[in-house]
Amino acid sequence: MPVMVHQLLLPELREAIDTDDMKMVASFCEILHPSIIAEMLHELDEPDAYRRVFHHIDSVNGARLFEYLEPDRQDVLVSLLPVEDLAKLIEHMSSDERVDLVKRMDEDREAAIMPLVARAEREDILRLAKYDESTAGSIMTTDYAALPASLKADEALRRLRREAPDRETIYYVYIIDADRHLIGFCELKDLILAPPYKSLAEIMREDVLSIPVDMDVEEAAQYLAQYDVIAIPVVDADKKLVGIITHDDVIDVVIEAATEDAHLMGAVQPMSAGYFTTPFWETIRNRVPALVVLFGAELLASFVLQQNEAFLLTFPLLLFLVPVIMATGGNSGSQAATLVTRAVALGELEFKDWIRVGLRELGQGAVLGMAIGCLALAAVLLLGPHDEVLRFALVLTLALVAVTTCGSLFGSLLPLFFMRMGIDPAYSSGPFVASMVDVVGLGIYLSIAAYVLL
Amino acid sequence: MPVMVHQLLLPELREAIDTDDMKMVASFCEILHPSIIAEMLHELDEPDAYRRVFHHIDSVNGARLFEYLEPDRQDVLVSLLPVEDLAKLIEHMSSDERVDLVKRMDEDREAAIMPLVARAEREDILRLAKYDESTAGSIMTTDYAALPASLKADEALRRLRREAPDRETIYYVYIIDADRHLIGFCELKDLILAPPYKSLAEIMREDVLSIPVDMDVEEAAQYLAQYDVIAIPVVDADKKLVGIITHDDVIDVVIEAATEDAHLMGAVQPMSAGYFTTPFWETIRNRVPALVVLFGAELLASFVLQQNEAFLLTFPLLLFLVPVIMATGGNSGSQAATLVTRAVALGELEFKDWIRVGLRELGQGAVLGMAIGCLALAAVLLLGPHDEVLRFALVLTLALVAVTTCGSLFGSLLPLFFMRMGIDPAYSSGPFVASMVDVVGLGIYLSIAAYVLL
Repeated sequence: MPVMVHQLLLPELREAIDTDDMKMVASFCEILHPSIIAEMLHELDEPDAYRRVFHHIDSVNGARLFEYLEPDRQDVLVSLLPVEDLAKLIEHMSSDERVDLVKRMDEDREAAIMPLVARAEREDILRLAKYDESTAGSIMTTDYAALPASLKADEALRRLRREAPDRETIYYVYIIDADRHLIGFCELKDLILAPPYKSLAEIMREDVLSIPVDMDVEEAAQYLAQYDVIAIPVVDADKKLVGIITHDDVIDVVIEAATEDAHLMGAVQPMSAGYFTTPFWETIRNRVPALVVLFGAELLASFVLQQNEAFLLTFPLLLFLVPVIMATGGNSGSQAATLVTRAVALGELEFKDWIRVGLRELGQGAVLGMAIGCLALAAVLLLGPHDEVLRFALVLTLALVAVTTCGSLFGSLLPLFFMRMGIDPAYSSGPFVASMVDVVGLGIYLSIAAYVLL
Repeated sequence: MPVMVHQLLLPELREAIDTDDMKMVASFCEILHPSIIAEMLHELDEPDAYRRVFHHIDSVNGARLFEYLEPDRQDVLVSLLPVEDLAKLIEHMSSDERVDLVKRMDEDREAAIMPLVARAEREDILRLAKYDESTAGSIMTTDYAALPASLKADEALRRLRREAPDRETIYYVYIIDADRHLIGFCELKDLILAPPYKSLAEIMREDVLSIPVDMDVEEAAQYLAQYDVIAIPVVDADKKLVGIITHDDVIDVVIEAATEDAHLMGAVQPMSAGYFTTPFWETIRNRVPALVVLFGAELLASFVLQQNEAFLLTFPLLLFLVPVIMATGGNSGSQAATLVTRAVALGELEFKDWIRVGLRELGQGAVLGMAIGCLALAAVLLLGPHDEVLRFALVLTLALVAVTTCGSLFGSLLPLFFMRMGIDPAYSSGPFVASMVDVVGLGIYLSIAAYVLL
């Protein structure tokens, strides 16, 4: 297992670096997968080790290794390495990775490095840098194989062989006309299986899937996942081929989106860095806003209670049951919000489904409320002995049915309305829904209590 | 865009099916991607349409289409189609998909169909069915290309051409010895680039990554994502090659795992079917347990309040502030639990990190508590005018610092201890942590209040 290999070889890599045995370092980089070298360097954790490795490694292997480093390590190296080495590295990186790198550089550094990058690569970077972070364009690569339809199969294979090292995938070949319009595609295996004299026009499949360059990046990921393809071509408004999105970038998008949603649903501003790599104060900044807003919402609940002081002090049991009422409504709301938010993230639900969703959750909430309400009957008896036990039981049961239903309805609809307003539905989940249901539920509870008890 | 194509052609497909124009239906299946046909059939939403399409389609196209149907549709078809057609379909399905299908069949149906499946495929199904749902073995396929090292490059290419239609990927070729031990691999492009007379032993790379067949399926997915490969070979305890896992299955695993975690973190038992396709009562069953447990926890909070009745009724403001104390502790706990649970899911944190995590969250909680505590000072003044305002402010501020710190600490450590005990850390998130912190926080609050006020 590679995990073991990497632990066994770590001391040897350290020694090779310490003794400046660069032939040994180079042979490590030849033999091991770049992601393993990256992990080993990460464990050595010395900026100088990085600098020395990159100073001696050839630029093709260097570029592969560089792509596997964490973005913050990449940024440190950008400030440490000589500009000439960096320019060479950038030329050999895959087109999607290097754009992200250049976008993160400060202006001075970018101005120093970019003129040294070969013209074709420089223009490619500038072209890709235009696309917004949230679009398919931002994760696409321009390292794809595109060929004209008139080419014969054997000539196409020869071209692919020549271009192979520079392409992220040659397993899919895209067929374009003279104006770069995407007109078809074939798989490498189709080419191998075809008679050598046949033209690509005869071999290619015309039902080529493509996505527009401005498609939302998460939607693009769903698309590729749905069709089980290794890569999907990206076209501009004129249907001209401008890039491809590959399966590895899609996995990254899916994982990042899930993390973002999980954070939002836990009332934390999304953080893309790791748990320990996110600075302490940045985590604080990402947690404070939600806590403050929710604190405000709960103050409102306290205020409602205080306004009903006279009534509540006449029936103290009502006050003691406040946690039960609030939490049950909130939990029911969290559940509904979670189910709907996840369904929206998976592309299952749209805003137009809101009536169906609302009706379903009305039913869910009512059934769940009645189940909890039955339990509550028993619970009041446990909390007693107390006068008027039956009337309290009635208040509690009615209130539980009401807040559970209200929580479920509210929790399910809020994400849909957020989506409609262009806000990420995940914002509406968990603690937010719970706090809002707390206040509304409290109002319902007190109204029912007043009606039954007074 | 395919979405439009599919909407445009829907009436035509419906007509072809209604008029039994099976040549037209077959040509639809030839031209369009099976996932699009699957979506169109889904919108037609008539079991009979499925049955008629599958009765007339050839088994290769049928198997591809079948794989794109939702599992519940597949199960309906299993009960509708003649056993002979099903056996043919199963023979042509990819090996990982058909195992899942057979596993879901009831015993009678399986006993009726399996004897009609060709022997090689039947044995393959039985072999794969042995692997546990949670292991790499359960998502691997046996449709890979494996060749002996002694083969020359040109002969290898000829073999691949012959076998291509039956393989999930021929882009990676695995090299095995006489006992099926995995000894190397090469990419299809290496084969094409190599001189025809070279043996695979000379061309292959020996640093082949592999994962054990009993590796956890989510870990396997992370592995493939980390190395950016299209497929990864799976070996048994003797290092013999038993299958491969492909990129499309990994995306599915990642998405499913994210859904499962999201549900658990929202206090819902995970559901793999869609929002509307999950039956109403199944959703109820998945929501009731958490609601009941949390209801019980909150009853405990009510009980604690009732036990302190005399004290609380002397200072009613204490009672009115209960929602603020409980919610703030709970929210801080939800945040910490979310951050840690997600980091665990991404493989960033392990149990051994618990001290570092605990110290960090102690700091986070204290800082957050002090921030909210400052706000609370202002808040008490707003809730007043009241005697002893300053002493109440002291109680509230101290209690907020304490419950926020306690929530953060508790919320961060619980997922790690759950993981240690072999329970999915996601169980410990959100509402569960919140409810537990509610009760503990209430105790802290009342102790502080008693100390300051009495």
